[in-house]
Amino acid sequence: MSGFRHIALFRWIEGTTTGQQDEVAAKLRELPGAIPEIREYGVGVNAGVNPGAYDFAVVADFAGLDDYLVYRDHPVHRAAVDDYITPITAERASIQYEL
Amino acid sequence: MSGFRHIALFRWIEGTTTGQQDEVAAKLRELPGAIPEIREYGVGVNAGVNPGAYDFAVVADFAGLDDYLVYRDHPVHRAAVDDYITPITAERASIQYEL
Repeated sequence: MSGFRHIALFRWIEGTTTGQQDEVAAKLRELPGAIPEIREYGVGVNAGVNPGAYDFAVVADFAGLDDYLVYRDHPVHRAAVDDYITPITAERASIQYEL
Repeated sequence: MSGFRHIALFRWIEGTTTGQQDEVAAKLRELPGAIPEIREYGVGVNAGVNPGAYDFAVVADFAGLDDYLVYRDHPVHRAAVDDYITPITAERASIQYEL
């Protein structure tokens, strides 16, 4: 399968609540409905198996780089990031790669 | 789809060569042949789209946590980590979550 994948892992700041994390997940799950360039979209919450693991993951697949850029810069995505994610993010690790 | 996903992102140390990274990718791509508990396995090399992105990604899917643990602790996996990955790893970000 060809395509383009974006992965972002987040570690939340001390004191972040499950409710805040659920809000992030809910906001992100709305994005495929708003951004048709998204081919596949998933979020995940750390299962707590390994010490040091990040708290939250986003995996988004696209047909190619151009579609990823539409997602990255889309105002609905940016609003979710600015309003819900950035305020509770302590660390973020990301990568984009060809599938 | 239910299942269990493991994601690991790596930032290599200064001076790591493309050859060393290719070696890591080759070693990891042997793992599904050695560890039948792996359901799906992919590696990715940073496309260089965003500053600060990590260098290398592993996404591995399993039927459940138990199969992931077999992979995590499997001697063939540990050998690849110890011999090829750890020596060139500057930073590692990972998460495991239910699909």
